[in-house]
Amino acid sequence: MSAPVPFGDRLQAVFAARGRLCVGIDPHSSLLAEWGQPDSAEGAREFGLRVIEAAADRVGIVKPQVAFFERHGAAGYAALERLISEARAAGLIVIADAKRGDIGSSVAAYGDAWLRPGSSLEADAMTISAYQGLGSIEQVMVAAEAVGKGLFVLAATSNPEAAAIQRAVLQQSSRAGATVAQAILLGVTGWNQGRADAGERALGSIGVVLGATTELALAGIDVESEPPRPGLPVLAPGFGHQGAEPRELRARFGSYTGGVIASESRSILAAGPDGIADAIARRADEYGAVIG
Amino acid sequence: MSAPVPFGDRLQAVFAARGRLCVGIDPHSSLLAEWGQPDSAEGAREFGLRVIEAAADRVGIVKPQVAFFERHGAAGYAALERLISEARAAGLIVIADAKRGDIGSSVAAYGDAWLRPGSSLEADAMTISAYQGLGSIEQVMVAAEAVGKGLFVLAATSNPEAAAIQRAVLQQSSRAGATVAQAILLGVTGWNQGRADAGERALGSIGVVLGATTELALAGIDVESEPPRPGLPVLAPGFGHQGAEPRELRARFGSYTGGVIASESRSILAAGPDGIADAIARRADEYGAVIG
Repeated sequence: MSAPVPFGDRLQAVFAARGRLCVGIDPHSSLLAEWGQPDSAEGAREFGLRVIEAAADRVGIVKPQVAFFERHGAAGYAALERLISEARAAGLIVIADAKRGDIGSSVAAYGDAWLRPGSSLEADAMTISAYQGLGSIEQVMVAAEAVGKGLFVLAATSNPEAAAIQRAVLQQSSRAGATVAQAILLGVTGWNQGRADAGERALGSIGVVLGATTELALAGIDVESEPPRPGLPVLAPGFGHQGAEPRELRARFGSYTGGVIASESRSILAAGPDGIADAIARRADEYGAVIG
Repeated sequence: MSAPVPFGDRLQAVFAARGRLCVGIDPHSSLLAEWGQPDSAEGAREFGLRVIEAAADRVGIVKPQVAFFERHGAAGYAALERLISEARAAGLIVIADAKRGDIGSSVAAYGDAWLRPGSSLEADAMTISAYQGLGSIEQVMVAAEAVGKGLFVLAATSNPEAAAIQRAVLQQSSRAGATVAQAILLGVTGWNQGRADAGERALGSIGVVLGATTELALAGIDVESEPPRPGLPVLAPGFGHQGAEPRELRARFGSYTGGVIASESRSILAAGPDGIADAIARRADEYGAVIG
């Protein structure tokens, strides 16, 4: 069995071929109503299938928000299994936006759910929370890397009420003086750098979530510094509906720009089933114009 | 339609009738093997049904670890729906150990999944993470309270690698100087105190997770202080396999003792299908002896 292609390499290839835009699949009840779909697992499935159809060949990455499927229980998960499978079959990278976190053995089980080859929910990467410590997710970092999958660890998120906790300062720790967000970013960067083949990679396979509307400097993240090597994948919500614009991408992310995935959900989904393909194409062009 | 009985009142009644022990339902692959069950959704279901049968009439609370069901995708969720429903029908309070967290609209969808009356996954309470800020979970606090459900927000967890982040100190915030864990505990306590009927309640409906093996003082949590009013529900993993003993409960939790749920999983589940009923009864007696 040959070694899997690292997630970071797959991401780099998608950036080159399809650009930076990631389309969220968020079947919120209000969007289902706008799309003329019932507020049910079937509605979420039909909504998702149309988003995937519009995204395929126009962008390289989609991100289902798991909460809006879990809301419909096992039936919602069956819909999500179908959507992930269809999206991957269409050549899209799928990031399961699950934000799971727990002690190590439970996080490992979540990794099994979303990243194990052959799992019914198998995606390409997932979002994860390290509230229980970076050590609590180390086992899933190793497991993900081993099978060519990726992770995005929440660092500085886009919602304003997150600031107090994410900017809190570590005390007695090897990263004393760092903010919570910075400690997570540095921990992930260091982990990527510790891989045997780190020198040959443009992008690592473990990344972080940094909101595009967040004042990263206030969270202790210096985007003027030297770029990390290998580059750090950055899942960046906050573009579109939440206020950040494509033209701001380089200024906001500075030396991290090389790894940024610009994620938009509502700004694109609000175009409805008839307008979404055009909305995606237009927005993808805008990112293409700033990141050539 | 009459107002629902608040979760805190239901918890208080269970404490009086059945004591403090909560039995975890953790169908970890290694436990399934020990129990002679296949590592599948069916195995997790059969395992869970036997735990519930042994727990009913011996304790008042069970806590399924969602990760071990999600691992089996939609089929695992169908098994979990069945288990939650059976446990509630047997009169057990069910805490879905999901540790969900996200921005407000997504957390609200998670609340819908686990706490909405009539949802296929309807439990009595769920665990939740505030890495994205206490503000990100406020909507679900309101929604839970309105339908007689509860929440347990991660504060100071039992795994040692969590300390650096949970003991980080808030800077520019209304709780500047507090640790992350303390800010969450104070925020939840304050929220319970802000309810219109707070003065009449023995226990609030929103609680926290505090590990029984955690040095709470180092996390900024003072268990020598005056007890909060209303009392704070505290879900306390760390008893049993992880090292804390029933006789330590009062010393570890001090003024928070009145709200403590002692959660055990592996220590009880390791007794196997033939020994679990006795293991639960014995352990319940040990807690009963220290909390009369």
